[in-house]
Amino acid sequence: MMRKKQKEVRDPEQIEKILRRARVGRLATNGADGYPYITPVNFVYFRGKIYFHCAPAGEKLDNIERDGRVCFAIDLPLAYLDTAYEPTASACAVTQLYQSVLIRGRAEQVDGLEEKAAVLNALMASHEGVADYADIAPDTPALALCTVVAIDIESLTAKAGLAQGKGAAEVEKIRRYLLARGLPGDLEAAALLG
Amino acid sequence: MMRKKQKEVRDPEQIEKILRRARVGRLATNGADGYPYITPVNFVYFRGKIYFHCAPAGEKLDNIERDGRVCFAIDLPLAYLDTAYEPTASACAVTQLYQSVLIRGRAEQVDGLEEKAAVLNALMASHEGVADYADIAPDTPALALCTVVAIDIESLTAKAGLAQGKGAAEVEKIRRYLLARGLPGDLEAAALLG
Repeated sequence: MMRKKQKEVRDPEQIEKILRRARVGRLATNGADGYPYITPVNFVYFRGKIYFHCAPAGEKLDNIERDGRVCFAIDLPLAYLDTAYEPTASACAVTQLYQSVLIRGRAEQVDGLEEKAAVLNALMASHEGVADYADIAPDTPALALCTVVAIDIESLTAKAGLAQGKGAAEVEKIRRYLLARGLPGDLEAAALLG
Repeated sequence: MMRKKQKEVRDPEQIEKILRRARVGRLATNGADGYPYITPVNFVYFRGKIYFHCAPAGEKLDNIERDGRVCFAIDLPLAYLDTAYEPTASACAVTQLYQSVLIRGRAEQVDGLEEKAAVLNALMASHEGVADYADIAPDTPALALCTVVAIDIESLTAKAGLAQGKGAAEVEKIRRYLLARGLPGDLEAAALLG
């Protein structure tokens, strides 16, 4: 349920762009002690699911085996509009520009070697600067020892706390502020079009 | 419970440094639907607690009112050692260098105006580049409308997936890799001493 409808992102292409731009997401599982449990994971959005690779034992896997219900969150902080942006701002006026995706789903370990190899190769390919790695074949012996988890997406919402609803002068001011901080052009474009 | 003891950070000063360096943390609450629920928040570590400021209504606050048990996670990704670091690396050998803190605690809204004002001022002061903001006084009318949440820390563990246990030649290689990517000196020092 989203409170601020103005910030909702509905365009599937834009949502996919956020999913592909993020390298780290946070996974929350239900802990045995009644507390939720958060783990940051390097992930890839692949074939409509969230996949990550992790150690073969640990609290996160124990939690998933006991209760597959998870939350997976991606947030891309874009810029912090502080007093350098608005010198007269008080603490209440400071704003974080961001894009985020929130997923509820079911997590489970992937057993198939074909799927595991495809996921690991997709993970590598999704990470910038990693181009000439050695491809993993489904019959690689180490693959059986690798743990790969898939999150089957049950619901997804995306938000952008950006320049929506602001006037042209304000948008131009934000654009100059971002450019002065060397923020990437595509992020800037996403911010202003978001 | 931490599986990899080698990665544990026990020095309170180093833990506090991680808490003070991070600007964004992720809060997980227990959702009414049985799924955990993650929200990124701008926070401050102040007087031994985690504090954040949020909208006066929403799923996160509803969850906290129903069940105060939360998880709060901070992770500082430092660098990704990919094939630019190790050209022959396969997908299994790629490593993320990071520092992280995981907290379990009880969250509740702060009602006192003195505490709220102190927290908001600490939030502003903790954010780099925000020096000359207007201080908020406890009698500021808007303060009553501001929502501030405190997390009482029940347990805390910190980890550093850095250069521990590596030989001098490998540490020197990581140092050069970080420097070539313009990573800040203090982060680099933390990485190599961590």
